[in-house]
Amino acid sequence: VPSPSEPSVPTIADLLAAQRRLAGIARCTPVMQYDDWSGPGEVLFKCENLQLGGAFKIRGAWNAMSQLDDEQRRRGVVTHSSGNHAQAVARAGARLGIPVTVVMPDNAPAVKREATRAQGATIVEYDAASGQRESISHELAARDGLTLIPPFDHPQVIAGQGTVGLELIAQAAPFDTLLVPCGGGGLLSGCAIACRAGAGRTRVIGIEPARADDACRSFRSGTLERIERPDTIADGTRTPSLGIHTFAAIRRYVDDMGAVSEAAIVEAVRWLYRNLRIVVEPSGGLGLAALLSGVVRPGGRTVVVLSGGNVDAAMMRKLLDPAVSWPG
Amino acid sequence: VPSPSEPSVPTIADLLAAQRRLAGIARCTPVMQYDDWSGPGEVLFKCENLQLGGAFKIRGAWNAMSQLDDEQRRRGVVTHSSGNHAQAVARAGARLGIPVTVVMPDNAPAVKREATRAQGATIVEYDAASGQRESISHELAARDGLTLIPPFDHPQVIAGQGTVGLELIAQAAPFDTLLVPCGGGGLLSGCAIACRAGAGRTRVIGIEPARADDACRSFRSGTLERIERPDTIADGTRTPSLGIHTFAAIRRYVDDMGAVSEAAIVEAVRWLYRNLRIVVEPSGGLGLAALLSGVVRPGGRTVVVLSGGNVDAAMMRKLLDPAVSWPG
Repeated sequence: VPSPSEPSVPTIADLLAAQRRLAGIARCTPVMQYDDWSGPGEVLFKCENLQLGGAFKIRGAWNAMSQLDDEQRRRGVVTHSSGNHAQAVARAGARLGIPVTVVMPDNAPAVKREATRAQGATIVEYDAASGQRESISHELAARDGLTLIPPFDHPQVIAGQGTVGLELIAQAAPFDTLLVPCGGGGLLSGCAIACRAGAGRTRVIGIEPARADDACRSFRSGTLERIERPDTIADGTRTPSLGIHTFAAIRRYVDDMGAVSEAAIVEAVRWLYRNLRIVVEPSGGLGLAALLSGVVRPGGRTVVVLSGGNVDAAMMRKLLDPAVSWPG
Repeated sequence: VPSPSEPSVPTIADLLAAQRRLAGIARCTPVMQYDDWSGPGEVLFKCENLQLGGAFKIRGAWNAMSQLDDEQRRRGVVTHSSGNHAQAVARAGARLGIPVTVVMPDNAPAVKREATRAQGATIVEYDAASGQRESISHELAARDGLTLIPPFDHPQVIAGQGTVGLELIAQAAPFDTLLVPCGGGGLLSGCAIACRAGAGRTRVIGIEPARADDACRSFRSGTLERIERPDTIADGTRTPSLGIHTFAAIRRYVDDMGAVSEAAIVEAVRWLYRNLRIVVEPSGGLGLAALLSGVVRPGGRTVVVLSGGNVDAAMMRKLLDPAVSWPG
C-alpha cells in the first residue's frame, strides 16, 4: 500500500481484474440511444442509474472489499459517504459477510440512508455542518481495527468504477466524447483510464456543478483546490475536493473539465424523465446538463454517463414542478 | 384479408417475420431483475417503457405499415388511439414517408398528444364522452382512401407486439409466469403466441384494471363483453373491449386473467420509481400491481412486462404524492 501522500493510479490491468471480480455481481447496464436528438451528432446514455442499488458505486466497493483477507473481513469495514457509496459498501458487506459501519452526514437524503440501513449496515451520523466525516471514519478504523473503504480515493475503488468505461467501450465504441459526472473523481478517473487504453480518440470530459467546481479549478491550476460544504442540488458531488489518487488520474487521463448551473442540472433531470423515462438524480444528470446548456458542444458521437438514480420521491416531485425555480 | 367477423390469429411464423422487419427499428429493451425481491421466487421486468417512443406500440405499427404497397403508402394511413399507438404510427409514418392521420380523444394525456404531433401527424380530436372513435377513423379511411392501422385488432399489429415475447424468451427463458397488461389485448395476444411456441411451460396471465375488466369477463364468459368509457387511471386500457382477433388469440393461448385496484396500480408505479428508477405509466404497471396486491401469487421465476412509460410530469407528481389517495 502506498503512503497517503504518494498518488497511485490504477492501470488497465487493474480495471480488467476488477471486471472479472464483478462478473455476476454488478449489472451490465444498458446503453440507450436517444433517437430524436435534434442537435448535431448523436447522443447515447450509459445508464448506471439502472445499476444494482441505483448507482455505479457497487463496482468500486465490491472490487475493494472482495480483495480483503479473512482477518480484515472478520473485523469489518467503515466508510464515509453521502449515500450511494455507503449503500454499495453495505450491499457488498451483506453479500460477502463483512460487518459494515457507515459514517453519514445528518442531511443525507432519506432514500439513501434507509437503503443503507436496509442492507444491514450500522450508521453513525455526524453534523454535516462540521464536515469532519473523514476524521470520524479514520478514528473508528483505528479504534476497532476496521478497514476503511473510502468513497473514491482508493486505487481499487477507482479500478472498480473504471469497469463502467470498459463495459461502455464494448457496448458502444467508437465514440468521440464521453461526459462523466465528477464528485470525488472516482468514476471519472476510472472511465478515463479505460478510454485511454481502449478508446484512443475519445475525449473524456468531467462535469461538475458550478457551485462545487473544485475539480475544474484543480484541473486548471494544477494544485488540489477545495470548496468546503458546496451548496448544490447535486448531493453526490458535495465532496470538498478530489483525492490524491483521483487528482493524479484526472491530470493524466482526462481531456477537459466543465461546470454547469443548478438550473441546467434540473433541466437535465426533467429531460431524462420526459425523453428516456428514467429516474436520474441531480448528480447523475451532470453530463447531459453540460450538453443541453452548451457547456459542451454536441457533435460526433457523444456518450453521457448517468451515474445514479437515487432521488427521493418528494425531491423528484419538486424537480418536476414547473413552479419551482432554480438558480441559473 | 379475412372478413371483419372472421377471427385471424397470427402464427409464430408471423411473429418471426415481424421480428425480421423490426431489426434496427425497435430497440431490444432491457430485462431487469429486481435483486432485493423479498417475496418467494424471483421477479424480472421486460422494460418496454424504455422502447423507442416509450411503449411497445412501435412494434405492431411498424410491422403493419412496412408491409403496405406503394399506392397505400402514397394515400396514407389513419388510426384511432388514446396515445401510445398513435405516437408509434406517427413515428413509423415519418420514417416510411407515409402521411398519418390520428383520431384522438380530447382527454388524451398531453404528453401523448404532443409527441404524436411532434412526429408530423395530423390530429383529429373527438369528444371522448361520445366514444365514436372507430366510426370516425372508418369514415376518414373510406372518404380519403386511407389504410386503417387499428391499435390492436389486426393480425399484423398483434404479430408485431408478439416480438416482445420472442425477445424476452431469448433474454430470460425459462420462466414460469408472464404477466402482461391488457387493454385491447394486442400485446397480451402476441406474447401468449410467442410463449406457447417458445416457452412451453410458461403460464401467461393478462392483467386489467378492475374498473375496466371487460377482458377478464370475456375470458370467463366466452363472449365478447364491453365496458363503455371505463373510469381508470390506466389510460392505455380504456378500450371498451377486446377485438375479434385478440379475443380469439387470448381464448386460445392465455392461461388466466386477473384484475387490480386503482390503488394497486398507483403503488406499482411508485414501487418501480423507487426500486428500479424507471418511469412507468399506470397501464404499464398492471402486472406488478397484480404481484404486489396478491392477485397473482409470486413464486418461481416471474417476468412482468412493463408496457409503457408515457406519463405527464404533472400526473407523475400526483402519483408520487403520498397525500393523494386512490380508490382501493
